[in-house]
Amino acid sequence: MMREAAGRGAGLVVFPELALTTFFPRWYIDDQAELDGWFERGAMPNEATLPLFETAKELGIGFCLGYAELTADGHHFNTSILVDGDGTIVGKYRKVHLPGHREHEPERPFQHLEKRYFEPGDYGFRTFDAFGGRLGMCICNDRRWPETWRVMGLQGVEMVALGYNTPWHYPLAPEHDHLQNFHNHLSMQAGAYQNGTWVVGVAKCGVEEGCLMIGQSAIIAPTGEIVAMCSTLGDEVITAVCDLDRCQEIRNNIFNFALHRQPQHYQAIADEEKPGG
Amino acid sequence: MMREAAGRGAGLVVFPELALTTFFPRWYIDDQAELDGWFERGAMPNEATLPLFETAKELGIGFCLGYAELTADGHHFNTSILVDGDGTIVGKYRKVHLPGHREHEPERPFQHLEKRYFEPGDYGFRTFDAFGGRLGMCICNDRRWPETWRVMGLQGVEMVALGYNTPWHYPLAPEHDHLQNFHNHLSMQAGAYQNGTWVVGVAKCGVEEGCLMIGQSAIIAPTGEIVAMCSTLGDEVITAVCDLDRCQEIRNNIFNFALHRQPQHYQAIADEEKPGG
Repeated sequence: MMREAAGRGAGLVVFPELALTTFFPRWYIDDQAELDGWFERGAMPNEATLPLFETAKELGIGFCLGYAELTADGHHFNTSILVDGDGTIVGKYRKVHLPGHREHEPERPFQHLEKRYFEPGDYGFRTFDAFGGRLGMCICNDRRWPETWRVMGLQGVEMVALGYNTPWHYPLAPEHDHLQNFHNHLSMQAGAYQNGTWVVGVAKCGVEEGCLMIGQSAIIAPTGEIVAMCSTLGDEVITAVCDLDRCQEIRNNIFNFALHRQPQHYQAIADEEKPGG
Repeated sequence: MMREAAGRGAGLVVFPELALTTFFPRWYIDDQAELDGWFERGAMPNEATLPLFETAKELGIGFCLGYAELTADGHHFNTSILVDGDGTIVGKYRKVHLPGHREHEPERPFQHLEKRYFEPGDYGFRTFDAFGGRLGMCICNDRRWPETWRVMGLQGVEMVALGYNTPWHYPLAPEHDHLQNFHNHLSMQAGAYQNGTWVVGVAKCGVEEGCLMIGQSAIIAPTGEIVAMCSTLGDEVITAVCDLDRCQEIRNNIFNFALHRQPQHYQAIADEEKPGG
């Protein structure tokens, strides 16, 4: 698929969240050694991903890749890296907003044990000078939180690359299952528009281990418009020309932060205390 | 129109921003006495609005009303009030995010001098126990900022009432004129979904003094779904049954703030310093 993208002239390919494995948080695994087997250990590239790095370098194409990271000192993160066209890792992100639950809930058809298996990311939302602009990353549930977008928007982000693994069925509120695609796009389109940034949101979709996950991967302009979208739940490459200078149409005008923000009224958003009722 | 709404069983009517006057910031007015003529002085109800208060009390219906406020000590605000079914003012809001410009820009077909004529609201985003739930207000441009929604969301807001006066033509980026309706709904739907609140967004629409303003007033569920929408640019009453308990479907689950927020990574949003490039 990377070769197909390169053939269309792509300079950056975005792979989904946990692209190297199944979405293993859907299983309750109480053996730590077995669980750790789903994680990549130490620095990238490792033996398994070296062919991907070599192919990208051969093609002169950059990529964003999501995987489960086990650090040398034993920390577990849901991670993505940004690799430029010469194979250099230029950015790393660890998922901040971990959805789901900590304990085994046998009544669920599938678990969602991200809170058990991962620690919240310790980098926050950083941006990186790469690909002729300023790029950022987030992962899956992060995209639903406007804070994710705003913290990067304040740094002048021009493209956010993100992967997601979103089950169609949400056991806590199944009456909203039919809204999953709507909520996915609503969150990403609002994040794009309200910060004047391109968004590349990529699904690991279709049926994985019996679990149906939503698709509709999309490339979204700084106006919030979807300019390219997948139309299947299978493997699919979509491309768009993303002029990073178009971010200025939004951020110099309607969302000119320096002119229009009123941060003296925003402190509650950053307060550490848990919100009350 | 209030009687029409009451006839349909409405308990709360939302009027637009600056409902008592034209959108006078479209004109450059350098005579302060003339400018002040567009403002309501002192406490509500005044002589002009007393019939509205009396009609509402007669019908047992509450309302939200936007108007230009000139305080006894000479401050100018773009204000809205929330009045309950017995005519008591239960909440007051002063617009925080003032769009537009400060100086006369003769090249514009219409001015947008909110930054000249109003001070930013000094109350921030408060919420009020009323109508059997917790209600908040914002005005027009405020709806585009996710901070507006989140600060009220953290207080458990269950319905946000807002009015807007949004010109179809945006002189700074006319290439986005065709997106005005999309951006209006995108901002309100994202605010609803990401905070699990009802939204009632009401346009002063159509042609006012030669200026075409967008319509599509909407009532939006806590799922982000539009459940009622105006379909003309004329006077129109739309109604919906808004079960405030449905907010729990969102805020007890996907946006359970206590479980899932990570405010240690949000501080940049509240920082007073002007963001850099």
